[in-house]
Amino acid sequence: MNVVITGGAGFLGQRLAKALIERGTLAGPDGHPRTIDRLTLVDVAAAPPAADARLVSIAGDVADPALLERVIDPETSSVFHLAAIVSGQAEADFDLGMRVNFDATRALLEVCRARGHRPRVVFASSCAVYGGELPPVVPASTALTPQSSYGTQKAMGELLVNDYSRRGFVDGRALRLPTISVRPGKPNAALSSFASGVIREPLNGVESVCPVPAATRVWLLSPATVIDCFLKAHDLDGGALGANRSLILPGFTVSVAEMVAALERVAGPEVAARVRFEPDERVERIVRTWPVALDASRALGLGFPTDTSFDAIIRRYMGDEGVRGS
Amino acid sequence: MNVVITGGAGFLGQRLAKALIERGTLAGPDGHPRTIDRLTLVDVAAAPPAADARLVSIAGDVADPALLERVIDPETSSVFHLAAIVSGQAEADFDLGMRVNFDATRALLEVCRARGHRPRVVFASSCAVYGGELPPVVPASTALTPQSSYGTQKAMGELLVNDYSRRGFVDGRALRLPTISVRPGKPNAALSSFASGVIREPLNGVESVCPVPAATRVWLLSPATVIDCFLKAHDLDGGALGANRSLILPGFTVSVAEMVAALERVAGPEVAARVRFEPDERVERIVRTWPVALDASRALGLGFPTDTSFDAIIRRYMGDEGVRGS
Repeated sequence: MNVVITGGAGFLGQRLAKALIERGTLAGPDGHPRTIDRLTLVDVAAAPPAADARLVSIAGDVADPALLERVIDPETSSVFHLAAIVSGQAEADFDLGMRVNFDATRALLEVCRARGHRPRVVFASSCAVYGGELPPVVPASTALTPQSSYGTQKAMGELLVNDYSRRGFVDGRALRLPTISVRPGKPNAALSSFASGVIREPLNGVESVCPVPAATRVWLLSPATVIDCFLKAHDLDGGALGANRSLILPGFTVSVAEMVAALERVAGPEVAARVRFEPDERVERIVRTWPVALDASRALGLGFPTDTSFDAIIRRYMGDEGVRGS
Repeated sequence: MNVVITGGAGFLGQRLAKALIERGTLAGPDGHPRTIDRLTLVDVAAAPPAADARLVSIAGDVADPALLERVIDPETSSVFHLAAIVSGQAEADFDLGMRVNFDATRALLEVCRARGHRPRVVFASSCAVYGGELPPVVPASTALTPQSSYGTQKAMGELLVNDYSRRGFVDGRALRLPTISVRPGKPNAALSSFASGVIREPLNGVESVCPVPAATRVWLLSPATVIDCFLKAHDLDGGALGANRSLILPGFTVSVAEMVAALERVAGPEVAARVRFEPDERVERIVRTWPVALDASRALGLGFPTDTSFDAIIRRYMGDEGVRGS
């Protein structure tokens, strides 16, 4: 079977590719494990070359139907759709966000529909679909009233995944991702970038300027656990999801102050002292509309994994990235 | 000021046009009443010619951006977007539904955005945005999990209206319309067509075959009241709606059996006896996912009108259409 990952050169795309190659199988249309023959990574820039013969990297515009038709071939039975413009950039450039976060999702679903064999599609949505006036713990039955263009575009994508699944065009699953931390690399234009920055930069000996107050709480998940969630979501039987293909992934709630305290416990006070708070109204205005605690009981009931300790997440990040923290 | 109605040749479009011409004014950008200089009706087929010099009818494809650019001119400060493919047809022809119910809405919002003066846009959405497992009385805060392509397309349109309003591209209002009854004319491909058919056909001396059981309950509003709601929604200050531009219109709950009983009271047992029940699984399957009672307290608090008596609705229909019922 062939598998496609959009956003395959990105941080999560690369991790997912690695996990799939190591695993070597995914549930086929009948639910039984099938061998992955080819794993195609699509992204704006080609993923770094890989030694594995099953891996193919293609650079191109994920909103281009011709490209999607080429990569989602008749043997493609699974698509992980991770490509996206992050929240800050989608807010700054409305048209680009619509094109990549919505039009590409629609084009991808259309190509899958045209294939006619009902591929499994795992769509990376976001908890930013929620917004506005929210209860302290957000039930899954809460209306989506996103307060960002990113959240709007993801919510529209979810509606499509649900309708395409209901009609039998695809076998879709839309996962509402928490903020993912700790991400390696450089800060990005995601409005949640600080949730990795306050750990990553200090560990690299660099000051981190946090644009939201220390009391700001975040609904969080680690990179390792979110990859496990992607695999779990793919392999579970669509019937277990019923008519509602959208799932809140089981994150946990942590404040920035608690994150910095964990950093101090794991890497010492000198490292933690490198975090400086300098609120930025542009970031704060949207971040404070995001839910900080959600009812993920449906995903937990289906056996999705979660994280519990931010200290453990920092330690795992340090191990993965080979940072000592000094 | 110029005003545009899409779907202007349709039943509600024609009624709205008549009301606007009689009224002669609408709230301008500053909230004060302004004289309507031109009222353009756009539809697939031109509206019947009108004696009033302010009325312009244009036939064309409402999903064609070039047409929209022509009709939504720099003097257009208000757009009523009523054009739609009804639920049954959108279910039968997915691509047509996407094109008219979603793409046209997006194209219309884009033209309004390009105008740069933030026109008021009243979008006719539908209670079909709700679906799946619903509480007995649906609160406005309930998640939209539509179980039809029509409902999905309307829900996506609402998300756009909200985001375009939040960003200041338009001053939008999305109204979740109940089933409208009694509609004159012929049965249409709306899955709710029976809600008018069980009254209209018997009054015309014709048998009506109802595809859902008599116990089926419907969330309903009369044509006259929905037109009042359009005007009310247009003229209220956008600030009164806040960040959430979607509103449940205040319908009322009535069963088909109660509708037929009202018909018997108003027009006699011979007329009511012309209703025959012959359940059609294709219609029932989707109709039973629609909410039958919703919490419209927000609209009622804003002063939106409602109906209370189905007998009165039948009498008004008979008066408007000049049917005696025999």
